[in-house]
Amino acid sequence: MTETTTTLAHPIEDTVARLTRRVDVLEGELAVRRLQHTYGYYLDKCLYREVTELFSDEGEAVFCGGVYRGRAGIERLYLDRFRARFTQGHNGPVHGFLLDHPQLQDVITVDPDGTTAHGRFRCIMQAGVHESARGQFAGKSSYGQWWEGALYENEYVRENGVWKIKRLDYRPFWHAEYSKGWSETPPMNQVIPTITYPEDPVGPDEITPGYELFPNTDVVGFHYAHPVTGEVWQS
Amino acid sequence: MTETTTTLAHPIEDTVARLTRRVDVLEGELAVRRLQHTYGYYLDKCLYREVTELFSDEGEAVFCGGVYRGRAGIERLYLDRFRARFTQGHNGPVHGFLLDHPQLQDVITVDPDGTTAHGRFRCIMQAGVHESARGQFAGKSSYGQWWEGALYENEYVRENGVWKIKRLDYRPFWHAEYSKGWSETPPMNQVIPTITYPEDPVGPDEITPGYELFPNTDVVGFHYAHPVTGEVWQS
Amino acid sequence: MTETTTTLAHPIEDTVARLTRRVDVLEGELAVRRLQHTYGYYLDKCLYREVTELFSDEGEAVFCGGVYRGRAGIERLYLDRFRARFTQGHNGPVHGFLLDHPQLQDVITVDPDGTTAHGRFRCIMQAGVHESARGQFAGKSSYGQWWEGALYENEYVRENGVWKIKRLDYRPFWHAEYSKGWSETPPMNQVIPTITYPEDPVGPDEITPGYELFPNTDVVGFHYAHPVTGEVWQS
Repeated sequence: MTETTTTLAHPIEDTVARLTRRVDVLEGELAVRRLQHTYGYYLDKCLYREVTELFSDEGEAVFCGGVYRGRAGIERLYLDRFRARFTQGHNGPVHGFLLDHPQLQDVITVDPDGTTAHGRFRCIMQAGVHESARGQFAGKSSYGQWWEGALYENEYVRENGVWKIKRLDYRPFWHAEYSKGWSETPPMNQVIPTITYPEDPVGPDEITPGYELFPNTDVVGFHYAHPVTGEVWQS
Repeated sequence: MTETTTTLAHPIEDTVARLTRRVDVLEGELAVRRLQHTYGYYLDKCLYREVTELFSDEGEAVFCGGVYRGRAGIERLYLDRFRARFTQGHNGPVHGFLLDHPQLQDVITVDPDGTTAHGRFRCIMQAGVHESARGQFAGKSSYGQWWEGALYENEYVRENGVWKIKRLDYRPFWHAEYSKGWSETPPMNQVIPTITYPEDPVGPDEITPGYELFPNTDVVGFHYAHPVTGEVWQS
Repeated sequence: MTETTTTLAHPIEDTVARLTRRVDVLEGELAVRRLQHTYGYYLDKCLYREVTELFSDEGEAVFCGGVYRGRAGIERLYLDRFRARFTQGHNGPVHGFLLDHPQLQDVITVDPDGTTAHGRFRCIMQAGVHESARGQFAGKSSYGQWWEGALYENEYVRENGVWKIKRLDYRPFWHAEYSKGWSETPPMNQVIPTITYPEDPVGPDEITPGYELFPNTDVVGFHYAHPVTGEVWQS
C-alpha cells in the first residue's frame, strides 16, 4: 500500500478521509433510492415533464426492450408517446385514469468512483380506467383494469453533485387482467415494440430483440455480485 | 463565508463537524423510515395504544381530510373510533379481522435544523373479515374484503433525541372490492368524515373540505422539490 | 463516565471514533436490508443454491414453524425440498412457474456489538403456474394461482466483515386463491409441516407447534422496543 507513509504521517486526517468516503457512499445510496421513488410518484400522477427532467441529457430509457436515447429519445417516450396517449397531452393526471406502480425492494450499488451507481427495483402496478369515466376514453384502445409485475435494472450518474437517471430499464414480467389473474391472462405482447423511430414516430431508437413476457421466466441479470460468495452473475 | 477563518484555524475539527452533521441527517432519515414502518406494523395488529404513543403530544392525525388534534384527538381517532369499532375495545388483533397495509416507497427529507422531517409513503391495504368469523361481527356494518391504495404526506419531530410523528396525513386514493377491482368499485365515500367532534363523539376536530376518492386523481402535493431542477411543487 | 479523561486527552480522536461507530451501524442496517432484498430476488428466480449461500454455516431457516438447522438443514429445505418440487431439481426458473414475493417494510436493528442484527420484513406473494404451461406440471400437486401475505422476523450475523442470514423465520399469514380472496379462502394448512426429518426426508429438524394461519391473527413478536416509549414487546 503506497498509503502507508501518509497514514503514519497524518493518522487522524486519513481516518477522517476514509470515513468521509464511507459517508459519501451511504448518501449516494439513499439519494439514488430517493430519485427512483420520486420517479415513481411523478409517473403515477402523469407528471411526464418532471419525469424527463430526472434523466441525464446523455441518459436513456428502455421499455420492454425498446431503447429511447438521449434527451430527444426520453422526451419522445414520455411526452410524445405516454403523455399524448394516456393524458391526451396534458401534463398531469386526468380524471378516471389510474396507473399506480409502487417502487419496491431496492438493491443499490454506488460504484467505487462515487459518480455512477446501479439499482435494481421492482414494482406492482394497478392500472385501468374507472367505469364512470370510460366515456371520455372512447375511441382509444380499450382499457380494462390490470395488475402488472415488473423489474428495473437501472443506472444512475452524479453530475455536478446531483444524482440523475442514466439508464432506466423497465422490464414488465407478468400481467393480470383483474378478473383473470396472472395465470389466466395471455401475454400482453402488444406492449413490446416492433417498429423503430422514425418509421414509428413515437418508437424507440433501437429494439433489443427477444423480449418475452410470462410464461417466460428468464432471469433479468443482477448488476451486483452475490453478497456472500462474491460470485458475479453470468447470464 | 464567515466560517473561513475558523476553518483555517481548526481544519480537522471543522471537517469532522461537517461530517457529523451529514451523519445526523442519514440517521434521521433512517429513524423516520423506521418510525413509519413501525407505525404500520402496530396498526396492522390493532395495537392502537402503541400507535398513539408514536405521536408527539402536539401531534395530529388526518384521515381522509378529518383532522384529529393533539393527544386528545389522536386518542379519539385510534382508541375511541378505530379500536372501539374494529376490535370492540380490545387492544390487539381479533380473530378473523384482517387489515394489512404494507408501508412502501418512502421519500424522507430531514429539514436543515435536524429536528423536523417530512416523509411521503404509500401503502396497499388488504382488508376484510374471514368468512369463518363473520358471525362474531354480526350487527356491525357489513364487512366485505377489499384492496385500498393510499398515500401519506407526514411530518415528524425530534423531541429529546427521539423521532415522533408530528402530523400523519393518510389519504386513501382508490378502493377495490375484491371481486370487482378498482375500476368497477364506486367511491367508498362513507370513509370521508362529514360531522366534527363533539357532535360526532368520535369525529375529527376539523374537516378539510373537498376530499375526493378515485375516479378523482388530483395530486397530493409533494413536500420536496424536484431532485434535479429544484422546482418546488405548486399545487 | 470513565471515558472523561480520555476524551479530554484526545478529543478529536474520540469524536471520530464515536462517529465511526455510528457509520458502522448505518452501513450495517443498509447491508442487512440489501441482503434480505437479495434473498428475495434469488428465491423468486428459483436460484436456490445462491439462496443457501446467503446463510451462515450455523444458520437456520424456519418455514411455518418448521426449523431447518445448519448447512445440512438449509440445503434440505431449499435444494431437496423447494428445488426438487418447484423446478424439478433445476437451479433457476422454469417456464410458466411464478413465485414473486416482493420484500417490504424493513425494520432493522443492528445490535450494540455490531456483529449481529435483527430484521422484520413482510412480503406479498404472487404465485401460480401459467395456464399455457400446466401440462408440464401434470402429476404434481395441483397448482392454482394465489396471493400470500407473510412476515419475517430474521436474525443476521457478520462473519469476517460479511453479513449473512443467521435465522430466517418466514411466517405466512394469509392466503388468497386468486378467484376467492383472503376472506373466502380456507386456511392452506397443507403448508404447515407435521413430520420431521428423517421420517420426512425433506422435513424440518424440529417443529414449533401451534402454527396457525388466518383467520388466526396472533402477533408475531417484534424484535425491537417501542421507538418512543422504549417498551419491550411481551408476547
